[in-house]
Amino acid sequence: MTTMTIGPTSEKTPAPPKLNPPERLLFGPGPSNPDPRVLQAMTANQIGHLDPYFVELMDQVMRSLRGVFRTANHHTLPISATGSAGIETIMMNLLEDGDSAVIGVAGYFGHRMAEMARRAGADVRVVEVPSGQTLDPAQIDAELKKKPAKLVGFVHAETTTGACQPIAPMVEVAKRYDALVAMDCVTSLAGLPIDLDALGVDAAGSCSQKCIGAPPGLGPISIGPRAMQAVQARKSKPHTWYLDLALLFQYWGEERASRSRAFHHTAPIAMIYGFHEAMRLILEEGLEARWARHQTAHEALVRGLDKLGISLFPAPADRCATINVVNVPTGVDEAAVRRRLLGMGVEMSGGLGVLAGKVWRIGVMGYNAQIPRVERFLGALEEALRAEGWKAA
Amino acid sequence: MTTMTIGPTSEKTPAPPKLNPPERLLFGPGPSNPDPRVLQAMTANQIGHLDPYFVELMDQVMRSLRGVFRTANHHTLPISATGSAGIETIMMNLLEDGDSAVIGVAGYFGHRMAEMARRAGADVRVVEVPSGQTLDPAQIDAELKKKPAKLVGFVHAETTTGACQPIAPMVEVAKRYDALVAMDCVTSLAGLPIDLDALGVDAAGSCSQKCIGAPPGLGPISIGPRAMQAVQARKSKPHTWYLDLALLFQYWGEERASRSRAFHHTAPIAMIYGFHEAMRLILEEGLEARWARHQTAHEALVRGLDKLGISLFPAPADRCATINVVNVPTGVDEAAVRRRLLGMGVEMSGGLGVLAGKVWRIGVMGYNAQIPRVERFLGALEEALRAEGWKAA
Repeated sequence: MTTMTIGPTSEKTPAPPKLNPPERLLFGPGPSNPDPRVLQAMTANQIGHLDPYFVELMDQVMRSLRGVFRTANHHTLPISATGSAGIETIMMNLLEDGDSAVIGVAGYFGHRMAEMARRAGADVRVVEVPSGQTLDPAQIDAELKKKPAKLVGFVHAETTTGACQPIAPMVEVAKRYDALVAMDCVTSLAGLPIDLDALGVDAAGSCSQKCIGAPPGLGPISIGPRAMQAVQARKSKPHTWYLDLALLFQYWGEERASRSRAFHHTAPIAMIYGFHEAMRLILEEGLEARWARHQTAHEALVRGLDKLGISLFPAPADRCATINVVNVPTGVDEAAVRRRLLGMGVEMSGGLGVLAGKVWRIGVMGYNAQIPRVERFLGALEEALRAEGWKAA
Repeated sequence: MTTMTIGPTSEKTPAPPKLNPPERLLFGPGPSNPDPRVLQAMTANQIGHLDPYFVELMDQVMRSLRGVFRTANHHTLPISATGSAGIETIMMNLLEDGDSAVIGVAGYFGHRMAEMARRAGADVRVVEVPSGQTLDPAQIDAELKKKPAKLVGFVHAETTTGACQPIAPMVEVAKRYDALVAMDCVTSLAGLPIDLDALGVDAAGSCSQKCIGAPPGLGPISIGPRAMQAVQARKSKPHTWYLDLALLFQYWGEERASRSRAFHHTAPIAMIYGFHEAMRLILEEGLEARWARHQTAHEALVRGLDKLGISLFPAPADRCATINVVNVPTGVDEAAVRRRLLGMGVEMSGGLGVLAGKVWRIGVMGYNAQIPRVERFLGALEEALRAEGWKAA
């Protein structure tokens, strides 16, 4: 055995207090409240990441996730990190030094995708619209006409503005120029209609903690055949080991077919348990029913907000059902209302960037996309508004 | 609201079966069994990642983690991904294109660190020893004498060979050449004596699922002032957005002092809850007591193995208490023994790479580093050996 010589011991750190987080109704842009079944699943017997049961569970999780994405893409898995890392995985693997990318930007998360593409070494051209608007595919067309690109990227549901980008026209224009299509569906997957294969999206990334309804911690992605061809045709290895798809699929995918799973990293067992249960809930409910439930809950929210005289920020045709960005009523201290609401155990969120102080962001996602929960939220919001001196118009 | 046109709906995916993982005594190289308190903590009320309670919890988690690393380093946090990503974070941020690094390799995880350094763009020189041995600091000295390096990296407890690298002499030689010291302590933190500040290590990374005793999913790291200076002096941005320390600390660290936390990614709330509880258990027990418990459990294991005629692979002076790599007895079908053991609900692991088929890897870590649990393991191993036709020598 090894005896190590230890220098002067640092001051002893006291044990922290017991965890005691408050109860919250999570109507911010995410996380949403998970179904209690999801949290319970996370406490199931912990096993090894190469245990035969876990190896089978990985296959099952990939099958379920394909169902949620509506895709036959073999290369569909939850990245062992949060949703941001899922999008980064797509950028880091589909792009390499010197590649060209056109990224549509309608808010913070478009900018983030562009920055990730730059970190991957790509020459990035940004096509931008003002906050609250969606991109016109003709803008992308014009940019690609100037100079082709390997990849066109955009965000489906822009969480900072509440605007929802129609997918099909974006795919159509990108394909016209033979560009790969990458989509951030972090705030839409399992809440808004997405059929990856019918739409022809080559790579998409989401998160675990919004419409899917598990805690944050996983970045579900799906990579189609055209995108995998691009990955296989890379001239250089990606600037990442952890998010290298070629290595990841030797662990998760069919690339291991002829032998046992190659060790890559240790999968986050408890998170995968919760994610499995969340997808089980989704597939039990049925995607169409779940999409309809999100739409119904959104409509109930909008009706309730309308009664309070609160309007939505994006134009009606551009709105996401899952993330509602609303104009703060005039004469109201928006931060005070949010603080008061949080004091009642209800979270909604303020604006980011140029919209800070001007909007609230109200997520109606996953388990929370139920009329009774929406009504609880609306009641609390009205109460908080009144307590802060607001009077209905 | 947006109505999306959806193409031909893919075949409906049935809901997967209910999760039902088997009970396992996890004596592989990790994950180890978490204390039940840790799993319970993960189910606490889920809250938003910018909730005042969570923001305070992040500070508390950083304080506790400093205690576990025995460091005053402000820049100490759990990366929102597994232990591998923690090591990658260190390499991606401390190194940039054209930097020079010397990586000591005593097994698979040394090679992995070298590969991560290459992905960061560094010119990597590997100093290697045969499996089961530890590096001689004179080898590093000779390499640095030939040509200096910005960083010297090594693995403390090499999980593939069970060899434990003495830290202090490695630091001493690196500092002589003014190189930063990066250490992988994935299989040692909270199990073997580590005092980061007394040792003078500039950057260290571990995992949540071994001696710390939480489920896999987080990569705790600590970055010292010399390393942060190097990060701040970078000529280019890191080839990663998700693991960019400058961005991460605007969310987690004192860099946010003058304003509210800048949004980066959504922290994995439930994992942080479990990690908090695991560190609470560590600090309640006290690090010295915990190190001693790991040592005592290791000694009990070695005595028991000795009675079975099973010897350890590394030389006595080089052994890790936390990960015991043992020689498979002659005439035994090693895979059959492991399968039989797993059938009894007990996991140990086979060898990786050149050691495949030759060794077993037995982890005695975290909650499992208790004599009664070691005895359960030993009893099961003897039973499995006999069932496979083995006879004590």
